[in-house]
Amino acid sequence: MRIITLTTDFGLKDPFVGIMKGVILSISPDARLVDLTHDVEPHDVVAGALALESAVPFFSAGTIHLGVVDPGVGTDQRAIAIRCGGQFFVGPDNGLFDLAISELSYNGSPTDRKRDEVRIVQLTNADFFREPISDTFHGRDVFAPVAAHLASGLAFDDLADGADVPVESLARLHLVPLKYEGSSACFGEILACDRFGNMITNVRQSDLPSDSGMVRIEFDDGSAIDGLSRTFGDVASGGALAYFGSAGRLEIGVREGSAKESFGLHPGSTFRLCLH
Amino acid sequence: MRIITLTTDFGLKDPFVGIMKGVILSISPDARLVDLTHDVEPHDVVAGALALESAVPFFSAGTIHLGVVDPGVGTDQRAIAIRCGGQFFVGPDNGLFDLAISELSYNGSPTDRKRDEVRIVQLTNADFFREPISDTFHGRDVFAPVAAHLASGLAFDDLADGADVPVESLARLHLVPLKYEGSSACFGEILACDRFGNMITNVRQSDLPSDSGMVRIEFDDGSAIDGLSRTFGDVASGGALAYFGSAGRLEIGVREGSAKESFGLHPGSTFRLCLH
Amino acid sequence: MRIITLTTDFGLKDPFVGIMKGVILSISPDARLVDLTHDVEPHDVVAGALALESAVPFFSAGTIHLGVVDPGVGTDQRAIAIRCGGQFFVGPDNGLFDLAISELSYNGSPTDRKRDEVRIVQLTNADFFREPISDTFHGRDVFAPVAAHLASGLAFDDLADGADVPVESLARLHLVPLKYEGSSACFGEILACDRFGNMITNVRQSDLPSDSGMVRIEFDDGSAIDGLSRTFGDVASGGALAYFGSAGRLEIGVREGSAKESFGLHPGSTFRLCLH
Repeated sequence: MRIITLTTDFGLKDPFVGIMKGVILSISPDARLVDLTHDVEPHDVVAGALALESAVPFFSAGTIHLGVVDPGVGTDQRAIAIRCGGQFFVGPDNGLFDLAISELSYNGSPTDRKRDEVRIVQLTNADFFREPISDTFHGRDVFAPVAAHLASGLAFDDLADGADVPVESLARLHLVPLKYEGSSACFGEILACDRFGNMITNVRQSDLPSDSGMVRIEFDDGSAIDGLSRTFGDVASGGALAYFGSAGRLEIGVREGSAKESFGLHPGSTFRLCLH
Repeated sequence: MRIITLTTDFGLKDPFVGIMKGVILSISPDARLVDLTHDVEPHDVVAGALALESAVPFFSAGTIHLGVVDPGVGTDQRAIAIRCGGQFFVGPDNGLFDLAISELSYNGSPTDRKRDEVRIVQLTNADFFREPISDTFHGRDVFAPVAAHLASGLAFDDLADGADVPVESLARLHLVPLKYEGSSACFGEILACDRFGNMITNVRQSDLPSDSGMVRIEFDDGSAIDGLSRTFGDVASGGALAYFGSAGRLEIGVREGSAKESFGLHPGSTFRLCLH
Repeated sequence: MRIITLTTDFGLKDPFVGIMKGVILSISPDARLVDLTHDVEPHDVVAGALALESAVPFFSAGTIHLGVVDPGVGTDQRAIAIRCGGQFFVGPDNGLFDLAISELSYNGSPTDRKRDEVRIVQLTNADFFREPISDTFHGRDVFAPVAAHLASGLAFDDLADGADVPVESLARLHLVPLKYEGSSACFGEILACDRFGNMITNVRQSDLPSDSGMVRIEFDDGSAIDGLSRTFGDVASGGALAYFGSAGRLEIGVREGSAKESFGLHPGSTFRLCLH
């Protein structure tokens, strides 16, 4: 009984997700289906990639992650499947799996890359597709059936006709890297906002020098947060805090409030981190 | 292991859907549950019918579709079960299954009706209900238990006490039919809007004369779209297009935008199709 | 195959719920997962408690209810598991399970308390947690794994290291009790609003004297509803009604409309019930 997770920007108002599940269960009746999120903002590949990054460490080997945030559907963008760290990914080649693969293949640490463990194939074998292929819904006709065949026991090697896709040619997310200002400060960026109004940043714990800590976060409007908190309980109600969230990224929050509203932050907002 | 799909206007804020699942699993612990949508606008039977229409072709024989968009709950409206094309439907007799049955029984083509394959029974045998029956929640007390008993192996024939309900007496959706203006044009109508702002119409591919194509769609405010596109990639970013969507209906979209907003369309808006 | 229900305020935009399911299925691959709701307003323990109250009667013995509406995460609040009426609860000790336990242990009737059937243990045995425990996501690291171990067959007794937690020390919801004005009237309060704009109150059918009925409900602004209805069909379209809803609580609704908007009600609004 294999697990297939689903991550899309389809929303839950329309039956698109249910339709993909119908296709999957027609091929693999025993598959376990787990929704990660379907409320990614339409076409926001970065938000989809963050959702997958935060989720993959908590799924067991053999899990298949079906991801469809696909602004390029109907263009000549590749459809791919990836094997990495014992888990599988099926979806468009647009960077959606970039962060999750980093998470699985070197645990987020750029100093411990094991990229040779990543295998990628282009999905070209129509035997595993649903015909006719809609021009607008590859989730239903390409990605869902391929994920279902994998869940049913199809070997990863049998998915492709030709040679593996080199890792280097995979589409990448263009996240802004941290910019260091000597060793005492760096500039970071807000990537996303969660339901509670907490802002998720491009700063990972492993990005900071191990011999220094964060002492202050400064926003463009002059407001700032001092120190790093461990939990919301460390500040008073209404107080702001910076903390490493459950996904390992620096987050900015307000206890019983919304950092998004309090600080006027949004994806793309930048800030300065003072280190020491 | 039988599949039961669920389509309601209950939303996901309240536990109504979870409660129906508790009832189902108490009767049929092995049933596979698939949500089609629970975000149908309250009491919008047409939107529920469109969701079911687009989904049923992707489910396997034996699937049971539980539908509860039921503004008439507590009135003397019939509760019914339908068998059609190897699949089953359980819910109120208010037109909710009308489009799905057409889809399954004659593949959407009015020239190939096989209505004799449709069987309908009125749900009157309280042995398969949950007692006491709430006046406001038949989804929980009537429809969910009946669907669960079907999933557990109850024969369709055993559901009813009396004779079949004649297909002719089934409640119908009152969709506006296409109105032809000679052979060169017809008037259509917007039925619904999806999450991306694409507008779904009452025009099916099979409705158009096979020897003519659509050359232009004209809206009431004078704006128009020329030609039929295959995919969003056929137009530039921000460009409008008309295309047959993944559910086989003519849709109106804007690449990386919203046709709803660009054209000010809403369910009930009409347009003129120029054919040649 | 045990059922685990999930009730949270995490929403469905972020992958938190999917992550908890990954953790559960890693421990208990056969568990059946049923979402009650994840759209509880952030930190609204009362709304979560009402959802659980209305759902538990419809789940079979052995069901495990995982509830995470947890404003106190990261403080010294206890993590607990409860066994009651053949069902189990796992979550924070903040009153979230208060109403559900009342429902199961004395069917909502204060005259038939069987509190001795309730057992509570504090979760202290880290063998059943996921390490390291995040300061902000006990749902993932404490509650989900404990629920999964229960589903896998762990005995309730093995969860705790020490003695049971006395029922008396359990955190309680501080719901406003009905205030009687002699035997002819009482004051009630709105607790929550459902998707349809129906308002759910703190009045249960068993709260009213059995020898009297409700004749009138009066709101603070002078508006009123006469009599108790059985179903929405009892009033004309747009008409207001008071009725006992499917969860056994007095509700205020407007047929094909919203009581919330028509009467300007919100959680905390009070009203006067005239009895006779």
